[in-house]
Amino acid sequence: MATHPVTAKGRKTRARIVATAVEVVAERGAVEATLDEVGSRATASRSQLYHYFDDKAALLCAVAEATNDAVLDGQALLLDQLGSIAGLRVWADALVALQQAQRGRGGCPIGNLVGQVGERDEQIRRVLATGFDRWEQALADGVAAMVDAGELDPATDIGWLATCLLAAVQGGLMLTQARRDPQQLRRSLDGAIRLVELHAVKGRPPSG
Amino acid sequence: MATHPVTAKGRKTRARIVATAVEVVAERGAVEATLDEVGSRATASRSQLYHYFDDKAALLCAVAEATNDAVLDGQALLLDQLGSIAGLRVWADALVALQQAQRGRGGCPIGNLVGQVGERDEQIRRVLATGFDRWEQALADGVAAMVDAGELDPATDIGWLATCLLAAVQGGLMLTQARRDPQQLRRSLDGAIRLVELHAVKGRPPSG
Repeated sequence: MATHPVTAKGRKTRARIVATAVEVVAERGAVEATLDEVGSRATASRSQLYHYFDDKAALLCAVAEATNDAVLDGQALLLDQLGSIAGLRVWADALVALQQAQRGRGGCPIGNLVGQVGERDEQIRRVLATGFDRWEQALADGVAAMVDAGELDPATDIGWLATCLLAAVQGGLMLTQARRDPQQLRRSLDGAIRLVELHAVKGRPPSG
Repeated sequence: MATHPVTAKGRKTRARIVATAVEVVAERGAVEATLDEVGSRATASRSQLYHYFDDKAALLCAVAEATNDAVLDGQALLLDQLGSIAGLRVWADALVALQQAQRGRGGCPIGNLVGQVGERDEQIRRVLATGFDRWEQALADGVAAMVDAGELDPATDIGWLATCLLAAVQGGLMLTQARRDPQQLRRSLDGAIRLVELHAVKGRPPSG
């Protein structure tokens, strides 16, 4: 039975293994990544690996959690600034700029894992779903802040807009990845932002 | 060097191999599917397999093409009826109903393959992109027909709406797959249809 590390050294070793596993999965895909390669690259023995992870599925769960954290942490500052339509545009611009820097490669790390293991492992699928939940909650918080600030109509369906925004990110990234064209994400996000703007309180000067 | 079948019997054998490969890939994923299992299930020998496909990558390309065809053929009648907002709603309802029947499982077959092999094989990625191209073209044709019929404003950005609609499908399916909840696709498509409706010619009675 794998254990959770209690010592600082143990936590460090586990974190090094997970970080290495994230790299290996990114390079080889979740299916072809092996415990052997993770162990060798992380300079961890098999007994160390199995001390923290019962099997590959358990390690992939940790990879999914680390992927959620990386995606959310990477845009945390932007998500904190979502409380206005201008802030929403800044967030969207940053997502598009990242795709431009990557030349449309890679897609969404969470979405990729859903495609690779979402139908094969229920536990990993649930972990990945919590990544989407956190992301959508941050978007909902941003839209709610726009309502509170009087920028959007009080009758705005906040949950619906948050789902539409996250779906626009995911769909835009999928088309960007398939076509190697960041403009796919640009167009998709422009559409979702347009939906948000529809709820802008009339007579207020535009914020962005 | 693999050859394209010239005889009816050859075409039938190749089609049987591809259909079997589609099944095996759906069950095991593109990475774990093996030529051996495809050959054994399709009752084709290794020499028959290699007669038509140089290697697994070539077979996966054929799987990608067959997946494109299956996704597009499966909604061909609905896509043909897209020439009105009412037709767009019928199409969206059918996509959601399919997800309800599947209990939110499976996601988009094209999108899944992008996640599995899109970063590993450029040729397969390009094939999958042509599936999205065909899909988006059908959506653009539908929106263009709405413009021609006077239901939408002549200034409508048809290409942009078509991208937004396809991105809403892909993003909605990704969230549906991760959450096992067809309402994710429903909300996402409602958003994209709202964008189309924004271009409706005022004073015309709603079509749906």
